[in-house]
Amino acid sequence: MPPRSPLAPAEFPQMPVISGVRLGATSAGIRYRDRTDLLLVELDPGTTVAGVLTRSLTASAPVDWCRIALPRGRARAIIVNSGNANAFTGQAGETTVDRTVRRAAEIFECLPEEVFVSSTGVIGEPIDPGIIPAALDRLKGATRPDAWAEAAAAIMTTDTFPKAATRTAQIGEATVRVNGIVKGSGMIAPDMATMLGYIFTDAAIPANVLQTLLTSATDRSFNCITVDSDTSTSDTVLLCATGQATHRSVSASTEAHLQDFRRALDEVCLELAHQVVRDGEGATKFVSIRVEGAASDLAARRIGLGIANSPLVKTAIAGEDANWGRIVMAVGKSGEKADRDRLSITIGGVQVAKDGKVVEGYDEDPVARHMKGSEIDFAIDVGVGRGSAEVWTCDLTHGYIDINGSYRS
Amino acid sequence: MPPRSPLAPAEFPQMPVISGVRLGATSAGIRYRDRTDLLLVELDPGTTVAGVLTRSLTASAPVDWCRIALPRGRARAIIVNSGNANAFTGQAGETTVDRTVRRAAEIFECLPEEVFVSSTGVIGEPIDPGIIPAALDRLKGATRPDAWAEAAAAIMTTDTFPKAATRTAQIGEATVRVNGIVKGSGMIAPDMATMLGYIFTDAAIPANVLQTLLTSATDRSFNCITVDSDTSTSDTVLLCATGQATHRSVSASTEAHLQDFRRALDEVCLELAHQVVRDGEGATKFVSIRVEGAASDLAARRIGLGIANSPLVKTAIAGEDANWGRIVMAVGKSGEKADRDRLSITIGGVQVAKDGKVVEGYDEDPVARHMKGSEIDFAIDVGVGRGSAEVWTCDLTHGYIDINGSYRS
Repeated sequence: MPPRSPLAPAEFPQMPVISGVRLGATSAGIRYRDRTDLLLVELDPGTTVAGVLTRSLTASAPVDWCRIALPRGRARAIIVNSGNANAFTGQAGETTVDRTVRRAAEIFECLPEEVFVSSTGVIGEPIDPGIIPAALDRLKGATRPDAWAEAAAAIMTTDTFPKAATRTAQIGEATVRVNGIVKGSGMIAPDMATMLGYIFTDAAIPANVLQTLLTSATDRSFNCITVDSDTSTSDTVLLCATGQATHRSVSASTEAHLQDFRRALDEVCLELAHQVVRDGEGATKFVSIRVEGAASDLAARRIGLGIANSPLVKTAIAGEDANWGRIVMAVGKSGEKADRDRLSITIGGVQVAKDGKVVEGYDEDPVARHMKGSEIDFAIDVGVGRGSAEVWTCDLTHGYIDINGSYRS
Repeated sequence: MPPRSPLAPAEFPQMPVISGVRLGATSAGIRYRDRTDLLLVELDPGTTVAGVLTRSLTASAPVDWCRIALPRGRARAIIVNSGNANAFTGQAGETTVDRTVRRAAEIFECLPEEVFVSSTGVIGEPIDPGIIPAALDRLKGATRPDAWAEAAAAIMTTDTFPKAATRTAQIGEATVRVNGIVKGSGMIAPDMATMLGYIFTDAAIPANVLQTLLTSATDRSFNCITVDSDTSTSDTVLLCATGQATHRSVSASTEAHLQDFRRALDEVCLELAHQVVRDGEGATKFVSIRVEGAASDLAARRIGLGIANSPLVKTAIAGEDANWGRIVMAVGKSGEKADRDRLSITIGGVQVAKDGKVVEGYDEDPVARHMKGSEIDFAIDVGVGRGSAEVWTCDLTHGYIDINGSYRS
């Protein structure tokens, strides 16, 4: 068990109860010993759901199932196991999912399509199809509305701390809550979707509106982080609204009275995304990269992720070396439009390069001091337009290699 | 100075003289102490030249110059320095190039456009514009036809061994020679072009034909390797033909009597490309990845490079872990068409997975033994078409992080 990330938040947040959501965790014995590895989230009837899933072409069996179930927009249960991704497991993988959702549908007297499943862990090994249904029978009467910390812990793999975030929002006169939990530490490059995350609210929001809100929030949070450029087979984020708060009805994502809810949801997603980066495998530095002056916001994000994914940039950060030449290299390889001779780079608020060359009388001392901290800020202006984006990553250290050289053993 | 790569060839090859080519190296004092850092290659009048250059949008000043000079197709001198890339150096960088090519043009009584320059090393620091011209004056009378090892050593940066390859070829009745030298160890992902390489032949081949042959050879060699997915600002390969061999004249790359020359050139490029991978920063394993069954050859190459660039695949190899699930993940994230349920994977000749799942009765022992060796072979069939490609990479180890956490210091 690796030590807790030095970038971890001081403590697990105080998570309020969300009316209509109960959580339970148990040790199903899928892979790990002496820890929980199965999460059951029970949702009251009437709960709507939206989701974003990996666009990997080798998606896991649970992701395949969620893609089938999501269009219905209703959720009564979410079941998540850690230790085994149930990916690349052929017919056996489908059988495991099928038996799990059928047993849950029996327990909760709902349709199988109202049961959502996720699996995270080793790829390519089948899960015994009887294990999860048996664990569900044990968990069935044992879920609680306050078990957020246990829930966040049960879904961890190489994570070193459980991850959660909460906000409240006003919808008209009513106060609603948004709670989210997430796992992720390596195989993190959710450019197209994201890792495992579960967000809950007591607001009453139709599934199609929920989907629009989630897609938008994901685009500026989970889709703007990278640990190692490797996109998972299992990425899933679900957003569930139990509808138990009483407020003015919602029918479109653009309605003015949803504005504060959007803000709260965006903040929860961003805080969870940052926690994933802060628990990046082997991470010792949290790195924010702001790109401006790009041809479009999408171009800015691609340039930002190009820098964030560069092993040479990431190892320089690990070495506390203000090697800004590698940022230039990474901008150049991104393939997005940039004007080399108008490029400027700022590190920790100090301008390092301007108009395609180092600034006159550059003093590296304050920049070197910034690089010794644990929060690193880069800002790059690529000098061609008005597109901008911010992305987040961590450094690449010996710890990453230690963790990943022996993950299966 | 890091120790010689464990994957290095036993010895520097016996390089024959190429009539019309003379080489010299000196210590110009650009960055390194106690080693050579400047190469001059003198080429007889009548030498034709072709080149491939980085497509980085933040290309170095020397690359900008080569792009201007190449269309003329004639070369009298090549000047390469190590220790400083002269990239992102603005007007100062152009001045250094300008003074270098002008001094060389005076010495060799040629046009500036017949002088080619490359620089490799740290990005963003100007080179004193007087240093290289002064060193050229010292080197001027000191070039020799047999100084291939000195030449290959002078262009090294983090390389741990000098790299060269040679072949002979028949053009009609005549025997011609092809000699190449190359440098490269990190910042190696020449998907669009390549790192620094210089290839020479005494064949008489027009520049346009030379260009076609070089582009084709590069596409299956330098463009199929990666160390760390980071594309350099300085990638350059030049192919020079002195024309001093006497053979049937050449006017098109498709002519039958050029076939053996093509083969020799392809082999030299491939051998040099493999040497770059074998000297990948921190490398302990040489990895060949064969992809078949893809929608096209280009799709196969992209899938192969997706696997080769995956930090999770590369750290698993470093850890001698036959974690083929990560290969599945990397295929999935490549974005290229693949049929998860027809995917098969072979490691070291042993079939591991077939039709989207692990093979019946999979015995990991022979695969685990293969992973302990220093030459690792993966073959993947993605089950959708007839496209194929082979790419090469190395593992990602603590050595890479040691080297790149402190490159500038």
